[in-house]
Amino acid sequence: MIVVMKRGASQKDIDHMISQVESLGLKANVLHGTERTVIAAIGDERVNGVQSLESSPGVDSVMPVLAPYKMASREAHDCTSVVKAGSLTVGGASVGVIAGPCSVEDEEQIVASARAVKAAGATALRGGAFKPRTSPYSFQGLKEEGLKMLATARDETGLAVVTEVIAPEDVDLVGEYADVLQIGARNMQNYRLLEACGRSHRAVLLKRGPSATLDEMLLAAEYILDGGNSQVMLCERGVRTFESHTRFTLPLATVPYLHEKTHLPVVVDPSHGTGHTSLVTDMAKASVAAGADGLIIEVHPCPEKAKSDGYQSMTFDQFDAMMKACRRVAEAVDRTM
Amino acid sequence: MIVVMKRGASQKDIDHMISQVESLGLKANVLHGTERTVIAAIGDERVNGVQSLESSPGVDSVMPVLAPYKMASREAHDCTSVVKAGSLTVGGASVGVIAGPCSVEDEEQIVASARAVKAAGATALRGGAFKPRTSPYSFQGLKEEGLKMLATARDETGLAVVTEVIAPEDVDLVGEYADVLQIGARNMQNYRLLEACGRSHRAVLLKRGPSATLDEMLLAAEYILDGGNSQVMLCERGVRTFESHTRFTLPLATVPYLHEKTHLPVVVDPSHGTGHTSLVTDMAKASVAAGADGLIIEVHPCPEKAKSDGYQSMTFDQFDAMMKACRRVAEAVDRTM
Amino acid sequence: MIVVMKRGASQKDIDHMISQVESLGLKANVLHGTERTVIAAIGDERVNGVQSLESSPGVDSVMPVLAPYKMASREAHDCTSVVKAGSLTVGGASVGVIAGPCSVEDEEQIVASARAVKAAGATALRGGAFKPRTSPYSFQGLKEEGLKMLATARDETGLAVVTEVIAPEDVDLVGEYADVLQIGARNMQNYRLLEACGRSHRAVLLKRGPSATLDEMLLAAEYILDGGNSQVMLCERGVRTFESHTRFTLPLATVPYLHEKTHLPVVVDPSHGTGHTSLVTDMAKASVAAGADGLIIEVHPCPEKAKSDGYQSMTFDQFDAMMKACRRVAEAVDRTM
Amino acid sequence: MIVVMKRGASQKDIDHMISQVESLGLKANVLHGTERTVIAAIGDERVNGVQSLESSPGVDSVMPVLAPYKMASREAHDCTSVVKAGSLTVGGASVGVIAGPCSVEDEEQIVASARAVKAAGATALRGGAFKPRTSPYSFQGLKEEGLKMLATARDETGLAVVTEVIAPEDVDLVGEYADVLQIGARNMQNYRLLEACGRSHRAVLLKRGPSATLDEMLLAAEYILDGGNSQVMLCERGVRTFESHTRFTLPLATVPYLHEKTHLPVVVDPSHGTGHTSLVTDMAKASVAAGADGLIIEVHPCPEKAKSDGYQSMTFDQFDAMMKACRRVAEAVDRTM
Repeated sequence: MIVVMKRGASQKDIDHMISQVESLGLKANVLHGTERTVIAAIGDERVNGVQSLESSPGVDSVMPVLAPYKMASREAHDCTSVVKAGSLTVGGASVGVIAGPCSVEDEEQIVASARAVKAAGATALRGGAFKPRTSPYSFQGLKEEGLKMLATARDETGLAVVTEVIAPEDVDLVGEYADVLQIGARNMQNYRLLEACGRSHRAVLLKRGPSATLDEMLLAAEYILDGGNSQVMLCERGVRTFESHTRFTLPLATVPYLHEKTHLPVVVDPSHGTGHTSLVTDMAKASVAAGADGLIIEVHPCPEKAKSDGYQSMTFDQFDAMMKACRRVAEAVDRTM
Repeated sequence: MIVVMKRGASQKDIDHMISQVESLGLKANVLHGTERTVIAAIGDERVNGVQSLESSPGVDSVMPVLAPYKMASREAHDCTSVVKAGSLTVGGASVGVIAGPCSVEDEEQIVASARAVKAAGATALRGGAFKPRTSPYSFQGLKEEGLKMLATARDETGLAVVTEVIAPEDVDLVGEYADVLQIGARNMQNYRLLEACGRSHRAVLLKRGPSATLDEMLLAAEYILDGGNSQVMLCERGVRTFESHTRFTLPLATVPYLHEKTHLPVVVDPSHGTGHTSLVTDMAKASVAAGADGLIIEVHPCPEKAKSDGYQSMTFDQFDAMMKACRRVAEAVDRTM
Repeated sequence: MIVVMKRGASQKDIDHMISQVESLGLKANVLHGTERTVIAAIGDERVNGVQSLESSPGVDSVMPVLAPYKMASREAHDCTSVVKAGSLTVGGASVGVIAGPCSVEDEEQIVASARAVKAAGATALRGGAFKPRTSPYSFQGLKEEGLKMLATARDETGLAVVTEVIAPEDVDLVGEYADVLQIGARNMQNYRLLEACGRSHRAVLLKRGPSATLDEMLLAAEYILDGGNSQVMLCERGVRTFESHTRFTLPLATVPYLHEKTHLPVVVDPSHGTGHTSLVTDMAKASVAAGADGLIIEVHPCPEKAKSDGYQSMTFDQFDAMMKACRRVAEAVDRTM
Repeated sequence: MIVVMKRGASQKDIDHMISQVESLGLKANVLHGTERTVIAAIGDERVNGVQSLESSPGVDSVMPVLAPYKMASREAHDCTSVVKAGSLTVGGASVGVIAGPCSVEDEEQIVASARAVKAAGATALRGGAFKPRTSPYSFQGLKEEGLKMLATARDETGLAVVTEVIAPEDVDLVGEYADVLQIGARNMQNYRLLEACGRSHRAVLLKRGPSATLDEMLLAAEYILDGGNSQVMLCERGVRTFESHTRFTLPLATVPYLHEKTHLPVVVDPSHGTGHTSLVTDMAKASVAAGADGLIIEVHPCPEKAKSDGYQSMTFDQFDAMMKACRRVAEAVDRTM
């Protein structure tokens, strides 16, 4: 940690800061520059109260040097971890593909979707039973009934089931039916939920919050890892920016950036990341080219009738064509799909 | 709702869209423009599946006309609602002031803080017992023990207690000790928590998510109102932007905008909104001038020793000076404080 | 254009709005909804004063229906235009590659760079002679001397020269030496410069401003097209968001979005778009996969000694490896490179 | 400047970096931490090539310690500078008020506006003659004819004239008629224009670019100061964020932040900052409360007929009421108006 003192900070301020730094168990190195004094604090700066030093007298700013996460760090494990859950593998040479409707609407819809996405090459089925919805007047999902339909679809196709869990008290129930617990973007910093998933033996797909920094996403993952669950996949699904032509802005540089910083595998969601079906295929191809370890794609038998997210859902035919196109790109980057 | 058809959409596409609109219970008006055909759908467009129409053939975009919220709307109640909870009143001529430390750290700290902020004119005490923290390695709060200390501070001073609840299963427990349940920014779209607060008889302070739109905040409030709890205060605490000199960007135009659109009273948090103690007083004054119904301010006996948020906390003296300055501004806008 | 009236707008307000709409040469259609009245204005809404109608009595909002640009529109020309300038072709089956240093520093540097990027497969040379720099204390470029060095490098290699022009009075001079005039991100809305480039016979590479919407970029292109110059390439180079791990956020969905809306070809700049050399190759591959018609890449003989942008510049070897990797992706999307 | 080395950087990398730092004229201090080595470079880090060191082997990141601007710094002059131009004074105890239409449309309009705003208490007249417009099809201003009308309005009222200059070649012409040269948001980084204004003897109002950081704004000011013109006012006019309810997001914390960092006075533009007339008064009051040294406000005889920006323009009566309201707030913060 580097403490930059204000121009004109007094010796008393500097001495005070040295004692503060030392009281946190760190070693203080004082450097007198031409314009400012800087105090470099050596040691594990991931301790409580470090940022509060900005309110000490004569301090201009406090700049951390170390990444705030540990277990998620690439320094802890210098290759991409492979997460397996039933038919789904993410993090190896093959790109995992999770596909299916936004919401489970009825058994026919989810089973038909499972069959179609499997035929096209998907390795897991997505479908929401517990739906976090912006408006209380929107369809909230079929809940346990929906989970049962997902299990039926798995029985029919062998596809692993990925479904969202929105509250800690549901983790066990959802875990009974699902192979992968999805933590949605709005819950990325729902710490009680992260802790409950940390205690689960199910793999977790952690979606990035729409304004979360990558450090915050990695710290959210750290909650799960720290709870004892090492089966964590990260998911970039777009961030909120001034751009209004797409529903979110999908920053694919996240993929290589995370591959440098963490061993956790990275999935991309081009459906939410664009919000328009017509843009999904090109962004899926780009995701694979950027090195994504997995894709998660919304597919619906009839998008215009979908109870949620129809505008960004693919038909079965569109998804099949997307898979063919992505497979060629995967080969061009030495992956399979 | 306005459905804009693509240039060159066929009559078949238009007829199909008319039938889709009518199947949602809306009346379709077709307008043939010089370049495009537009279909205006008349009726209550707040129904499931409206946005999915964007995936129908020949459709360019779907533009809603009505606000998506109802009970929170100013149209439902054309004056600012007054929320009362113990010593705190927000929404009337007097500006409510909630002040205290970020976290309850020990009894002496919270009682001393309560006394100091009351002496300076605060009308409620803030202090976190359950702390949502970005890192699992940070101080997580004293939990029920902290709630008891808050109750002690209320007993000593008469100040209403405002404290955060981070999970639905804690709502009853927190409600036993607190006068106001605070829903933090990271939980603004934790719908299970919103629903639990909707069933509580305690007033709720709902903080804006750092990338939530104002419509999303009003829909989050709608969950609480729809659950039967009408005692809701909204809180602007800053949004995430490219600006890095301040921790968040505090958009005060939120205040008059919300006063136009909703009857719920509006509180501003200049501590989180700036992230630097030195900027808090000016932004508190600006908040009052912009018409805020309340302020929430972080105050700590010794900010540099704070277990959280010291960099944005005021000392007792700084808070006292801030109150004096704000009181003058309040009078200049015909409010008291 | 759709004018949404406020709830409770009077008949007088509605009549007034009808006359206003008609005074702009548009036809007014009044639709009485269950909650609000809407006036659909039919005709070419790209006229002065339309947005000012929002201040008329009883008006809630004015929503445009038509895109504001015309000549740049895909509706004006329904396939991607091919721009040719010397050795560079952008918009056809082959992906154009513009590479070279941020700034021309001396003749040896630019000639060596030109040879190296040509050997690796680049089809044009980039290099700045007039440098717009954030700080007045930074290297401002070699100006005409730099242009001459670029011309020498072209003579040596046959590569077309792409270089930035920062002021209207320099357009003729730069056009004497360059094959393509680059308009930098900071000048995207420098209208006098756009007009001067519109009068030039040189092709133009128009970079997106860091917070420009895509409509604003297309309107900037419209200035050039409207001036008589149809040789315009658009360039996505990243936008400014809350993300701080990368210097800008590179939203590749821009590529397919622009291909839907405009006939102008689209180039991507992953060097500025990421700001870190280690992320450039993966984002170049992703750009090609997303359908980019061209790439522009910073390459320097010795990045750590670069007078500008060293942190995002590739060495010759890194660029050669990037080209090989991108070529495979190009083939996977039926392009050459 | 602090250079953070990667974990596992070799001694050779460290030695190389020391020599690079020294070759820039800085002194290198090596600090071996528990996890990483850090090199603190002492001296004036505002030299070319510093950021390029990020591409040296073994380097993780380079963090500047010093602000990049000098002449604009508060450290250079520790009180707010007072800028005077005719009837306008900005930076003293009195809050300067610049008001008038977005565009000069005809002599009657600008003279009537000047009289009305003067009667209400404005101390300068605004009005655009050269208009930078997003679309080439929008009204581009009356140019020199408009400047003459502004001069007539000054003759009639005595109000100083503030008007925009959009190209370096116009600086002399505009300076003949205007008291203050306004540099618009889109031209904040038009360096040739900044340099031309630096050579002018007219005061300059420099507006913040919609995605410019405050460091970038201060460096833009530095270009003008460095050119010899010390009469610079900074103007916050809102930044671009995900927020769509207001046209821009007006971050008033800019005011106290700039007052800490620079001696240049700060003006706020709540008209552009909100984009809606109904929000302007509250934000003007908030600006004054936050410590703004000046306001710039759009006022039009008939906003719904305005050729530009009618939606955010006030009528004469609205402006008069705003002035009365702001004056009370000014007094509450010990200013006059």
